[in-house]
Amino acid sequence: MPFHAYAASSPGGAFQPFDFDPGPLGPNEVEIDVAYCGLCHSDLSMLRNEFGVTAYPFVPGHEAAGTVAAVGGAVSTHQVGQKVGLGWFSRSCMHCKPCMSGDHNLCTTVQSTIIGRHGAFANKVRCSAEWARPLPDSLDMATAGPLFCGGITVFNPIVQMGVLPTSRVGVIGIGGLGHMALQFLNKWGCEVIAFTSSASKQEEALRLGAHRTVNSRSEQELAGIAESLDFILSTVAADVDWGSYLGALAPRGRLHFVGVPPSPVTFPVTSILFKQRAISSTPLGSPQTTSTMLEFCARHGIAPVVEEFAMSDVNEAFAHLEAGKARYRIVLKN
Amino acid sequence: MPFHAYAASSPGGAFQPFDFDPGPLGPNEVEIDVAYCGLCHSDLSMLRNEFGVTAYPFVPGHEAAGTVAAVGGAVSTHQVGQKVGLGWFSRSCMHCKPCMSGDHNLCTTVQSTIIGRHGAFANKVRCSAEWARPLPDSLDMATAGPLFCGGITVFNPIVQMGVLPTSRVGVIGIGGLGHMALQFLNKWGCEVIAFTSSASKQEEALRLGAHRTVNSRSEQELAGIAESLDFILSTVAADVDWGSYLGALAPRGRLHFVGVPPSPVTFPVTSILFKQRAISSTPLGSPQTTSTMLEFCARHGIAPVVEEFAMSDVNEAFAHLEAGKARYRIVLKN
Repeated sequence: MPFHAYAASSPGGAFQPFDFDPGPLGPNEVEIDVAYCGLCHSDLSMLRNEFGVTAYPFVPGHEAAGTVAAVGGAVSTHQVGQKVGLGWFSRSCMHCKPCMSGDHNLCTTVQSTIIGRHGAFANKVRCSAEWARPLPDSLDMATAGPLFCGGITVFNPIVQMGVLPTSRVGVIGIGGLGHMALQFLNKWGCEVIAFTSSASKQEEALRLGAHRTVNSRSEQELAGIAESLDFILSTVAADVDWGSYLGALAPRGRLHFVGVPPSPVTFPVTSILFKQRAISSTPLGSPQTTSTMLEFCARHGIAPVVEEFAMSDVNEAFAHLEAGKARYRIVLKN
Repeated sequence: MPFHAYAASSPGGAFQPFDFDPGPLGPNEVEIDVAYCGLCHSDLSMLRNEFGVTAYPFVPGHEAAGTVAAVGGAVSTHQVGQKVGLGWFSRSCMHCKPCMSGDHNLCTTVQSTIIGRHGAFANKVRCSAEWARPLPDSLDMATAGPLFCGGITVFNPIVQMGVLPTSRVGVIGIGGLGHMALQFLNKWGCEVIAFTSSASKQEEALRLGAHRTVNSRSEQELAGIAESLDFILSTVAADVDWGSYLGALAPRGRLHFVGVPPSPVTFPVTSILFKQRAISSTPLGSPQTTSTMLEFCARHGIAPVVEEFAMSDVNEAFAHLEAGKARYRIVLKN
């Protein structure tokens, strides 16, 4: 049986129905009936071939929630009918040093769900079993998808970088990633500050878990929080004045990037030396950390705020994202 | 009784004998009879007013080893005659959050031994008691001085950044700081790689504790260690190709600065994102970490390699340093 997907045949092109034969299921693979799939900004970057690795026809989709349709002969961890999610990564070697250390997202040959393979804007998608993470019963498949890329991207650094419930944390960018970061950090016990220059987003940030907001375009407001934050999470893909944010870090504070600014980041060493500051970055998270996040979401009732489109309206969904109108994450429904 | 010091009366000027009245000893102060004092590159920077904070007449010297000559009325931690050392910092408030957290080197009002006060190129020097660290009996005063600035500067990040005996560590710059870093890291149990472009320093690096050397000017040698180092400690005050060093970091690796390059450091976020790398920096170390270092030196027989000058030959000592001839640390003897 062919898979029924939506594919673009050229950079930036429109999506059209696209059937393909996935071949035999690999022994370590899981096949997922896609119920919902989130639309992530990196789907748009891949559509435009901004990373230079897109193959056409291109099937996006790497925030899938669905049920296991079939498992390969060597898979003992999953059963048909089980609710699972799949994110940006879909295969790790399971044997390299990072894999053997639990860092499957840092695997030396890690593969993406939408690079060199077809993604989840389809009725079905496949991955290696380790990346199909079981969904806790209480999580709603209609909103769970975005946790598997946007969600884990902002949850993982909280774990990896040792953010504590006693930490004072700032979040730059209140969008698809940032709106989940605010929820995670609030439930983590932190004091949460949202950086935003939009008045409407200031109110929403407070609703989502920020304790206060700082206008990131106000030098005065930035100066008012100088040397006070233990952790700043930047979710924006924009060039901003990183020096101001470094200056907002307390002694031992850290500026952590999950968004990729278009230009290199530049800083004088003295801006981090005297206060023992650090700069770091992480890619998504491991399968185990993803499951830890899912449990945390289930326990605290955390979910992305989504707008739903029919899978067949994929072109409208991309246009909505491209126009900057997504509040906060778009999900396509099969 | 006046203190007998050596002072320069103008930026870059020669040193001449300089007597001054230190005034009454503060209740929390310790007065030290200086036996030896190391000459650090920052003494030269201060002489030239490169930081813009030098007051003249300027008395340098912030790597002192000596004996306690007197203690203030409120000092219960030190006794006259006790062997102590004093480094870059000489006073912390003892009450701010960093001080109360054991990070007296990050104190919001921390004072330097040679900024706004007279340093240890003198027969006596004073400091707040917390910064006069007792010397273990087995440490030689003739070589202990440089531990209090150069030594703690490279020892502290090993502690703060969680370098493990199982870590593979690179050291950039085999000079006053780097030659101590090699000794510390070797005894810490690490695999130690010295980066140097000087053939003569390669041999010395191996003697000092490096297990192997990498020619930092060879693209081929740098490429040969790609993604392999857990920690890189940069001790150089020079602009080098930081991208090559970031590329040499293993997953979860860290590039740590204790030398301050003249230009800002620039990096694309992608160069740290995919492998979960970090960039950080630290200033010297706390009084307690300094004592931990002294115990480590005593247990492992670690000492700076020094060249001795008479205190009265201070001008010759500065000329030797300025000519780049110091191997590896200059100490002045009273």
